[in-house]
Amino acid sequence: MTYCVGILVHNGLVMIADTRTNAGIDNIATFRKLHVFEMPGERAIGLATSGNLSVSQSVLSVLEEGIANPETGQVETLYNVQNMFQAAHLVGRAIRRVFEVDGASLEQHGLRFDIKVLLGGQIGHTPMRLFHVYSEGNAIEATVDTPFLQIGEPKYGKPILDRAMSHEVDIRDALKIGLISMDSTLQSNLSVGLPVDVFVAQRDELKAAVRCRITEQDAYFRDLRERWSSALRAAHQSIPHPPYIENI
Amino acid sequence: MTYCVGILVHNGLVMIADTRTNAGIDNIATFRKLHVFEMPGERAIGLATSGNLSVSQSVLSVLEEGIANPETGQVETLYNVQNMFQAAHLVGRAIRRVFEVDGASLEQHGLRFDIKVLLGGQIGHTPMRLFHVYSEGNAIEATVDTPFLQIGEPKYGKPILDRAMSHEVDIRDALKIGLISMDSTLQSNLSVGLPVDVFVAQRDELKAAVRCRITEQDAYFRDLRERWSSALRAAHQSIPHPPYIENI
Repeated sequence: MTYCVGILVHNGLVMIADTRTNAGIDNIATFRKLHVFEMPGERAIGLATSGNLSVSQSVLSVLEEGIANPETGQVETLYNVQNMFQAAHLVGRAIRRVFEVDGASLEQHGLRFDIKVLLGGQIGHTPMRLFHVYSEGNAIEATVDTPFLQIGEPKYGKPILDRAMSHEVDIRDALKIGLISMDSTLQSNLSVGLPVDVFVAQRDELKAAVRCRITEQDAYFRDLRERWSSALRAAHQSIPHPPYIENI
Repeated sequence: MTYCVGILVHNGLVMIADTRTNAGIDNIATFRKLHVFEMPGERAIGLATSGNLSVSQSVLSVLEEGIANPETGQVETLYNVQNMFQAAHLVGRAIRRVFEVDGASLEQHGLRFDIKVLLGGQIGHTPMRLFHVYSEGNAIEATVDTPFLQIGEPKYGKPILDRAMSHEVDIRDALKIGLISMDSTLQSNLSVGLPVDVFVAQRDELKAAVRCRITEQDAYFRDLRERWSSALRAAHQSIPHPPYIENI
């Protein structure tokens, strides 16, 4: 399984992804799921994948090779598309190309062609955007109303986002809340695991503000987990006992 | 969808269930999913169901009629079985009986025979126990290591249980934490809805300590939701900003 979350707030973008993959519960490995395509001052793009690892890696390879745009003939990559909408289209075309090659065989073996991509970033003077690209190659986009998108196992980490996240949240808080969301998932789902990769870009800076990997040893993340656990304990302890049971 | 949670702690049992059913998102209704079988001083049993509503109601009807025990010939109901293990077996037989009648037809129409039951309580001098009975009629049981069981949509409400629940928790705290778990699910999943039914029994009391329905108007539950929301906000606000982003 996987958990990746992308958050687009007024002053920037946060993307966080775990690194655990499993083919059966006795075949666990660590693979990077969050990839950054950066040309400082010109573009900063994050791409996170969930689903079948072979499909994800093939899509990445196709994106690195580039795809000829059927209209212009130009070979497009994430380093030369002109805006994030084109970038989402390019990722969709890469997914469809891998489907053409592998889809039928996977199906013959009873496997689903399964990939989901979070694609966020900004290119030149065009807007910063965040997309969720589906296995079919189509995409939806985060908006002011719904500033976060999740792929993989979204449920454990969704309550904190539902309560705390909005477009007006500062990017530093967005990162913190995203890490709490990741921690909730790590706590409740063994198939999501450390280390965790992080990509943060401020709006209009056109470069990564953060590109880092958080491991088990990371002091801040350990502290965040402990503080969050004690805060939750304190929170439920501070709520009075239910009156329905006062006669006990 | 449905969310029901059963919690068995050292001094008693808590069961909480929502009441929302849906056949498609435009066909929403309220049905009781938590039923109490009580003979004060002799037995107190709670039974919560998730899955196909018709199957759940049929199982309840079979349980009310009673089933002849193939070994003793006696017609067994939840009011005359001798202990909770027998009660779980009885519920399993009721599920299998409904499957015999309706299973094949459901399958012909592409529907899955789907029911999950939480069954908790205590009978006479036998132990208080909590079971999860499956569609197949077999069951698992809560233990000191894993004191809570969930049916329906478990994920949104699981993080707080994972962090806060243990066999040593007092029954009043178990009820409070169970209600927080329910609230997290209500917040994130529209197909789980108020009112919420509650059953609480203290160990060895052999009667319900709480049998109530919590509605939208319930002052305590409103207060709990608000306090929990503000506590979560305060909790993430009290955590320092990530150092990875300090240069912003």
